[in-house]
Amino acid sequence: MTLLFGGDYNPEQWPPDVWAQDVRLMGEAGVNLVTVGVFAWAALQPEPGRYTFGWLDTVLGLLGDAGIGVALATPTASPPPWLGHRHPDTLPQGPDGVRRTYGSRNQYCPCAPAYRRAALAVTEALADRYAQHPALRLWHIGNEYGTACHCEHCARRFRGWLARRYGDLDGFNAAWGTAVWSQRYAEWAEVLPPRRVQYVINPLQDLDYQRFVSDALLECFIAERDAVRARNPAVPVTTNFMDFYRHTDGWRWAAEEDVVSLDTYPDPNDPDAAMRAAMSKDVMRSLGGGRPWLLMEQSPGAASWRPVATPKRPGLNRLWSMQAVARGADAVLHFQWRASRQGAERAHGAMLPHAGPDSRVFREIRALGRELAGLTGVAGTTVPADVAIVLDWDAWRAVELEHQPHEGFRYVDRLTDYYAPLWRANVTCDFARAAGPLQRYRLVLAPNLYQVTPEAAASLTAYVEAGGTLVMGPFSGVADPDERIFTGGWPGPLRELFGVRVEEHWPLPGGERLDIACPELGDFTATGWAEWSEARGADVVAAVRGGPLDGRPAILRHRHGNGTAWYVATLPEPAALARLLARVCADAGVEPVLPGLPPGVEAVRRGERVFLLHHDDGRVELR
Amino acid sequence: MTLLFGGDYNPEQWPPDVWAQDVRLMGEAGVNLVTVGVFAWAALQPEPGRYTFGWLDTVLGLLGDAGIGVALATPTASPPPWLGHRHPDTLPQGPDGVRRTYGSRNQYCPCAPAYRRAALAVTEALADRYAQHPALRLWHIGNEYGTACHCEHCARRFRGWLARRYGDLDGFNAAWGTAVWSQRYAEWAEVLPPRRVQYVINPLQDLDYQRFVSDALLECFIAERDAVRARNPAVPVTTNFMDFYRHTDGWRWAAEEDVVSLDTYPDPNDPDAAMRAAMSKDVMRSLGGGRPWLLMEQSPGAASWRPVATPKRPGLNRLWSMQAVARGADAVLHFQWRASRQGAERAHGAMLPHAGPDSRVFREIRALGRELAGLTGVAGTTVPADVAIVLDWDAWRAVELEHQPHEGFRYVDRLTDYYAPLWRANVTCDFARAAGPLQRYRLVLAPNLYQVTPEAAASLTAYVEAGGTLVMGPFSGVADPDERIFTGGWPGPLRELFGVRVEEHWPLPGGERLDIACPELGDFTATGWAEWSEARGADVVAAVRGGPLDGRPAILRHRHGNGTAWYVATLPEPAALARLLARVCADAGVEPVLPGLPPGVEAVRRGERVFLLHHDDGRVELR
Amino acid sequence: MTLLFGGDYNPEQWPPDVWAQDVRLMGEAGVNLVTVGVFAWAALQPEPGRYTFGWLDTVLGLLGDAGIGVALATPTASPPPWLGHRHPDTLPQGPDGVRRTYGSRNQYCPCAPAYRRAALAVTEALADRYAQHPALRLWHIGNEYGTACHCEHCARRFRGWLARRYGDLDGFNAAWGTAVWSQRYAEWAEVLPPRRVQYVINPLQDLDYQRFVSDALLECFIAERDAVRARNPAVPVTTNFMDFYRHTDGWRWAAEEDVVSLDTYPDPNDPDAAMRAAMSKDVMRSLGGGRPWLLMEQSPGAASWRPVATPKRPGLNRLWSMQAVARGADAVLHFQWRASRQGAERAHGAMLPHAGPDSRVFREIRALGRELAGLTGVAGTTVPADVAIVLDWDAWRAVELEHQPHEGFRYVDRLTDYYAPLWRANVTCDFARAAGPLQRYRLVLAPNLYQVTPEAAASLTAYVEAGGTLVMGPFSGVADPDERIFTGGWPGPLRELFGVRVEEHWPLPGGERLDIACPELGDFTATGWAEWSEARGADVVAAVRGGPLDGRPAILRHRHGNGTAWYVATLPEPAALARLLARVCADAGVEPVLPGLPPGVEAVRRGERVFLLHHDDGRVELR
Repeated sequence: MTLLFGGDYNPEQWPPDVWAQDVRLMGEAGVNLVTVGVFAWAALQPEPGRYTFGWLDTVLGLLGDAGIGVALATPTASPPPWLGHRHPDTLPQGPDGVRRTYGSRNQYCPCAPAYRRAALAVTEALADRYAQHPALRLWHIGNEYGTACHCEHCARRFRGWLARRYGDLDGFNAAWGTAVWSQRYAEWAEVLPPRRVQYVINPLQDLDYQRFVSDALLECFIAERDAVRARNPAVPVTTNFMDFYRHTDGWRWAAEEDVVSLDTYPDPNDPDAAMRAAMSKDVMRSLGGGRPWLLMEQSPGAASWRPVATPKRPGLNRLWSMQAVARGADAVLHFQWRASRQGAERAHGAMLPHAGPDSRVFREIRALGRELAGLTGVAGTTVPADVAIVLDWDAWRAVELEHQPHEGFRYVDRLTDYYAPLWRANVTCDFARAAGPLQRYRLVLAPNLYQVTPEAAASLTAYVEAGGTLVMGPFSGVADPDERIFTGGWPGPLRELFGVRVEEHWPLPGGERLDIACPELGDFTATGWAEWSEARGADVVAAVRGGPLDGRPAILRHRHGNGTAWYVATLPEPAALARLLARVCADAGVEPVLPGLPPGVEAVRRGERVFLLHHDDGRVELR
Repeated sequence: MTLLFGGDYNPEQWPPDVWAQDVRLMGEAGVNLVTVGVFAWAALQPEPGRYTFGWLDTVLGLLGDAGIGVALATPTASPPPWLGHRHPDTLPQGPDGVRRTYGSRNQYCPCAPAYRRAALAVTEALADRYAQHPALRLWHIGNEYGTACHCEHCARRFRGWLARRYGDLDGFNAAWGTAVWSQRYAEWAEVLPPRRVQYVINPLQDLDYQRFVSDALLECFIAERDAVRARNPAVPVTTNFMDFYRHTDGWRWAAEEDVVSLDTYPDPNDPDAAMRAAMSKDVMRSLGGGRPWLLMEQSPGAASWRPVATPKRPGLNRLWSMQAVARGADAVLHFQWRASRQGAERAHGAMLPHAGPDSRVFREIRALGRELAGLTGVAGTTVPADVAIVLDWDAWRAVELEHQPHEGFRYVDRLTDYYAPLWRANVTCDFARAAGPLQRYRLVLAPNLYQVTPEAAASLTAYVEAGGTLVMGPFSGVADPDERIFTGGWPGPLRELFGVRVEEHWPLPGGERLDIACPELGDFTATGWAEWSEARGADVVAAVRGGPLDGRPAILRHRHGNGTAWYVATLPEPAALARLLARVCADAGVEPVLPGLPPGVEAVRRGERVFLLHHDDGRVELR
Repeated sequence: MTLLFGGDYNPEQWPPDVWAQDVRLMGEAGVNLVTVGVFAWAALQPEPGRYTFGWLDTVLGLLGDAGIGVALATPTASPPPWLGHRHPDTLPQGPDGVRRTYGSRNQYCPCAPAYRRAALAVTEALADRYAQHPALRLWHIGNEYGTACHCEHCARRFRGWLARRYGDLDGFNAAWGTAVWSQRYAEWAEVLPPRRVQYVINPLQDLDYQRFVSDALLECFIAERDAVRARNPAVPVTTNFMDFYRHTDGWRWAAEEDVVSLDTYPDPNDPDAAMRAAMSKDVMRSLGGGRPWLLMEQSPGAASWRPVATPKRPGLNRLWSMQAVARGADAVLHFQWRASRQGAERAHGAMLPHAGPDSRVFREIRALGRELAGLTGVAGTTVPADVAIVLDWDAWRAVELEHQPHEGFRYVDRLTDYYAPLWRANVTCDFARAAGPLQRYRLVLAPNLYQVTPEAAASLTAYVEAGGTLVMGPFSGVADPDERIFTGGWPGPLRELFGVRVEEHWPLPGGERLDIACPELGDFTATGWAEWSEARGADVVAAVRGGPLDGRPAILRHRHGNGTAWYVATLPEPAALARLLARVCADAGVEPVLPGLPPGVEAVRRGERVFLLHHDDGRVELR
């Protein structure tokens, strides 16, 4: 088993004489997997009745002969203009009723029958032809799913989705709280996607539509997956996820894939990029249940969609590639092999840049290929972790609905608050669902869990009762899955577990800094959020000093069953949160991969190896 | 006569078993008035032909039995989905032609015949049933009127409105200045609401449409008011205004109500919130001609639509409630009684919060109820004021039209410039129309009066001639009601009165600070606005020093008839404006409610009492 | 030959009794040319079949009798409401499909047959009547062309434009790079303007549509020009350009005019306004091939569309008028003669302001009229310049397309970087096309030339080979006219000329400052942009110190043929660029108009005269 190395390859953008040169240079660079055909629909089916597979036969032949494997993509993320022109109802409609046209990509309504038919047809034709191709290693379905539409097709399917979820119209009206603002629906036909309205939309209408769009796209994925799988069950199937992407529920989607893959574009100008990249990669590993995953896309240079698209400095692509391998990737792929001369991504980095093979980028790519080839015994192995961070798409979507108490309260920021100090301490983290399984972790963190399902409440409670340590952040346990606020105090069904009762959420405006007394861990300040809470069984570890919340608990610790549940009712300054997590780790027996490393050095254990990654400038000596 | 205490009550959001608990807790809290049914249309008429009054019968019965009065609302601010679904032309259309759909609220076109019919029908059915109900104390028509539409129904009515205002097509073309930019209308059918255009819109088209929308909404109000009044003339009628809301002309609307009421949501994070709240309350008292008004809505906690929805700190709801009473309110009501578990306002504060009766908020509500009940002899009394500030909706709308000389010049800011120092000095102010009556005031302030009607010019002149003192701020006297600029110098028809002629308006960019010499009141700086003016009879009290306006008057004083007219041609720094107003008050014999109070203490006289309100932290001692 | 003086005159906005007063006051002010009828369509043709020329007969008669010449405008920039009402397809459609309606101006689709017919008809009627009028001096076609539309008429004409440019469908698909993202067009009918899409648009679709819109508007211009010219070939034809306006390609347009004219509105609050104004004026002179041009519009006071519309301080209108004359203008005209009382521009400055003739503005206008009348021997003369700055509309549009490497990289800023130090040094610059002719200049600057045509590459190379000096800024030589990125290194076809090869563009985020070592000119810093480059024959004059680009060349000098080519790979701080340009000027034998002038004094030679313009406050002494 070897690590995979390569990138997206779009031969349809180049004349045939370039293909042979490509394959030769891929050989030089040690490329062993390329993704072909992601946007090739029009090239494969230039008009409704006619397929043109000849060029792809040639390309796959060249690749196969050279021993380069192929991840073959279904080209359904960007239908050709002829589809939109002949079937305008396949073009997605915005909340404003305006149809988005072709000339870009993603111009499809996932619910339009004509789109689904056409997408399945091209997928079947592709699979009929290539499912047994010797070069075929992987099916790559669609691309970065996440487009939305608000048309009548969607409205119809949405009604069916709602009926399945809520039963009859009364159940649906009850769930959506349509008694508020006189929104009661008299018949299903009245129900619509969240289109343009005069004021703020029904929050569950918004949330359910997000859930529905994810599910509708997943139906598209499944239809194509089944079509290719039916033609050769041995070839695994994936689709490329993106970094923290609210549109598609990672847990539900990953369950339908054979292998999880990631497109990731950390910003080279972000001083926290390495930490954020690590987090994103740990999510991928976790979505796949710990199994190896594929780094499907990263840029060897700039990401052209960025307002300031600075390239990666020398060595950075290697460093981040190794981070992916360390955190469980079996593939290091790039977007893309050869830089496009035309189109919207012409300024995007590539393995083979516009400057050609005589370039520092290509030289680095060649070196990376060599290095990965030499990294034996890594592919297929797993990454141990004693800590899990709870990641929940519904909680994420719900906490970011309109008219929540603080528009600046962003879910991924909350996860990052907790991930960052552990990453700096070289404590490896998985991500997990609140509903579990959690038992194998020494420590579970739920930095924010606004919505709580009954299953989640039971799982978290059982985890602590069985001896686990749980830390939960503020604005948690607020609403049920139907976005119905819990009454009687928060965190709702978790009040017993944490021994706390929150009466009021107390968002703080930008400049305001709270003074917190904490004899055990040292005083600290907090910003952005506080709560009017009281201990109901828990020990008060830290409390607010001064102001209207004077004396209110800020951190509480509660022995429950055989375990410990911490509730953090505010957003402590980073140093304070680091101290808290260090303390909690120590209590729970969680240890870093290697202790005592200098700042900027990341350590990750994978299989038999420990990867040491130095992210800062200059030299560092380890003893 | 007692002060009213309570809030909005939306029983349709709760199962019947909660109603009895509500009534019991209302009793505990001293609630004696609740507003019912504001958004109950769908609950009262779940489909076109069918009314379901049973639940409301029960609720009104429970309330009446408990001695709690009811402000019964016509539910017409949010039609049920069935209306929009069956009559899409009742859904409002934006300037872009996109219909706003249901799923929120306010989704009606005030000119759509089907909406007007349906709204009147449900109003009549409601009034038929409850006009004689013993619990009924007040009719509450609609809710926070102000929604706009740009559809063909509106276009048709707009043309009629214009024809009534301007007579024939020639008069209309003359008024709209359609000779500019070739906009002459050849027939009425060509005239449209201000929809999407390529560049800036005809300013009078914009202004007249604002006037028209206010009038069209007022027609809706009047139709419902007449329907309920016809069924029981003894029950007073109101609709809830909002803080400084340009959409509805307060003077025209208040004239159609039996009592004026206010929804007010000062921002707890705004250090000037108490001052702004006082101003808003003084406006309400003034709109009602000095008669008591109703504080219809305030939040006991957070206002959920705010980007950072910080709750009121302990004591703040009491303080602002007392401010309302001090400034003439006979009712202290809240939005809402019981916090909604669902819908877009689920994060909004309530008298009975999600945490339930065992909460600091409910304890404060109970205490407030007790305190108000003990405050005898206040309800029905009036608030004396010797100062009036001119407030004019047309001048407001006109000065904020597109392509005025300074986009940062906002009408309410200008009023606040003058209100704030008087509030800090505990000088009580009314608000008044420029067209009067003004005679009973010792001092009249017109911080900005961009448009001047002939009636206003006559009234202000007569006021000064009869011995009054008038202070007018800059960018005044510029245009007539048809937005036709006065020629020959400004303030147009008020030049004689002020003894000044302004040749040019001189807006100043953000950073620029003007140096003003003022021997009489002390030198000062000014920002934002200046004028190229010259005295024509007035004394120059202050003048610009340096720059292109060197020597130009900044403050002028003119004896006219038996009175004095001051013209302030710039925006002085707050301390300088405070000195000027102190001087003007002294000259005019205007005195504070109590002299020598420490900062942060507000004093207001109402009836026999003086209310002292302390807005700052900590203790203060009065001697 | 005398200098022309006057402004836009809109008598249709005023009753006839004002006209005589206008003509009298024009006489007082020395006005000898007024532009009439720019927005008079509805006044001239109040309904489809009927013309009303009587008022214009009278006005032209009055003017002619007074010896005042007339620039007669075709009124086609703002069709009357009746056109849009009867032919809704003449109303322009946004990318969102929403038709922009009348009520403003520019509400026409340049491709709608009904618009073209109506515009031509009113033009022909106007020309039939007035082409021989003795007062007629100039035809003024349309107004500030630049409006866009995205409707079906436009789509149809766009397809024809594309077919002419690219030949058949295959050529078109190849040029547009439709292999990227599956955008291949199966038939012409599928091709659309760039309307609303889901993600970023095909860049060449965007660019070609900009080119097409400019050409479609130019067709409208030409049709009207030909109609008036056919009726009297002796009267010259112009249309008014605006300061740096990307919508219309100045070179292509100027070639169709008899004389070039400019509307210019420098911001009095901009400390660099005089420099920017000079640049804009030099562009006009250059577009006309060095011949005198007309300052068609400037405001004597404020420009009402500005967010803060500060008027010109005393003397400023004179100063900027003289700058125009110095830089080649034969006319000093204003928008407008008499300030409008109504309409969207009522707050705009005018020669005769609202205050009337007794005003500082009108007094200054009178003085300016006198002064210009006394400035003999200037009209008709030319302005010598030894330096040319390359200005190219396609390069401008292309470098500002979406998803370029740095969204803050703006073409006009780049030109200004180089223009400003030369203006401060009193070195007069022309602007020129890269494709030449360039031979007559000692020095050519190309601050940015992202797109390079084969003609441009040949012209620049030949210029240097023949002994010229060329300086080129960064991000140049990147793409061909079909927006196809050059491969093998940049600046593409200019690599030999500059002796440099750029591998990677390196945009820098806001705060980042690069340290550059430059022994020859002094070390400096740079921001915003850098490049990974290497010398291939050129001398390295400056190089980056530190960071990932350590050692990479920042400025290179290359002897090529008999000349010298400098490549500047970054954006040096202004002082460093000034030093570089001083050095280059010295080497190339370029001299200032006058040496040793104090700061704030601008010197320009025109004909026999040298104009000295002092832009700062206070007095300055020249020796």
